[in-house]
Amino acid sequence: MIIEESIAGRSLLARLDHGAEMIGQITDLARERKIKAAVISAIGALSRADLGFYDQAGREYMVRAVEEPVEIASCTGNISLLEGEPFVHAHAVLADSSGTVLAGHLVRGTIFAAELFVQELAEADLHRAWDKKTGLKLWSDVQPQGVGR
Amino acid sequence: MIIEESIAGRSLLARLDHGAEMIGQITDLARERKIKAAVISAIGALSRADLGFYDQAGREYMVRAVEEPVEIASCTGNISLLEGEPFVHAHAVLADSSGTVLAGHLVRGTIFAAELFVQELAEADLHRAWDKKTGLKLWSDVQPQGVGR
Amino acid sequence: MIIEESIAGRSLLARLDHGAEMIGQITDLARERKIKAAVISAIGALSRADLGFYDQAGREYMVRAVEEPVEIASCTGNISLLEGEPFVHAHAVLADSSGTVLAGHLVRGTIFAAELFVQELAEADLHRAWDKKTGLKLWSDVQPQGVGR
Repeated sequence: MIIEESIAGRSLLARLDHGAEMIGQITDLARERKIKAAVISAIGALSRADLGFYDQAGREYMVRAVEEPVEIASCTGNISLLEGEPFVHAHAVLADSSGTVLAGHLVRGTIFAAELFVQELAEADLHRAWDKKTGLKLWSDVQPQGVGR
Repeated sequence: MIIEESIAGRSLLARLDHGAEMIGQITDLARERKIKAAVISAIGALSRADLGFYDQAGREYMVRAVEEPVEIASCTGNISLLEGEPFVHAHAVLADSSGTVLAGHLVRGTIFAAELFVQELAEADLHRAWDKKTGLKLWSDVQPQGVGR
Repeated sequence: MIIEESIAGRSLLARLDHGAEMIGQITDLARERKIKAAVISAIGALSRADLGFYDQAGREYMVRAVEEPVEIASCTGNISLLEGEPFVHAHAVLADSSGTVLAGHLVRGTIFAAELFVQELAEADLHRAWDKKTGLKLWSDVQPQGVGR
């Protein structure tokens, strides 16, 4: 287990932009406010989305397109560093008008309306690196070399 | 994007009352403790619920009644001000005994048992106002006039 | 309503171990770091899981085995004390490769990869005790007797 102990930093509430791409806009927010580590949570609605499922045996993401309006029933995740840049990792639970629920890794989503909470973790310094066991970019206890930060 | 930067205030854990209405009880808690801005999260179970889906084209909520016991698999959202009073906005993911999962805007729910977390945001001052693009009451950067606070 | 007012303590981000049992590993973390009260949130993926649904009339948990890889689309809950020891209460929303979503009380799950956030509540002192109305072990305002802490 890799454990990073920190304390709460800035707490941000944001109304994301109608029509913008959600993961991109959270990434932009992190870059502009110089957030290196945070946990995030959001609710709202999307006009479309792409949801990922990681094939644990095949080691690749399968992506499902959701081509209709959905409620963001839940969206939680974190911000950490990948190659020295803020990287948003978020999972979401979406519900369509028929009551069908879809869930997984939020690859991208077009915002209808969304309310985002970002809790910065002031002293955390978490870097992602490729993990042999899973094929995923996970938090690593090896400090990255030669990253221009 | 509207961004409100704040810091953590009080952290409350609450056991909600068996038989009470969940959104109303969280609103009461916010009013009693004078919480103007917060993020919330809850787990537990409901004996019934109403879940909303916002029709993005038709600009109205469709409400689905869930007339049976359900687990609250997730319930996240926030508290901000609407017309000077605390307003709770929460989305939920519910699961019934058959394994069916329902999700959306939590309009109301009757508590069987629920454990609530409220993280106050000490310096945030977010007001909802009607938004032309979506037809929703979203956070606005226009300060409300003549609100009796 | 039982309300415990506190302030934020330590904030932990953890990469949980591939192959470990998730609830057990969070419990171990709480014990090692001497965390008495916290809220938790996680995303990631499990190779299998057991999900519980509480039969509100029959007063017992029904447990459903999920014998396949799933995304942890959401996992939220808390840590408090039961008989003087850290007790993890978490609910989860899981998604399988076919797009089916499952949700409920996370009884146990085998970690493929998981990123955990633990927000300690520094001054909270919440104890679980058997509750007559629900048959569940809920937060109680009666201080436990003779607990070896």
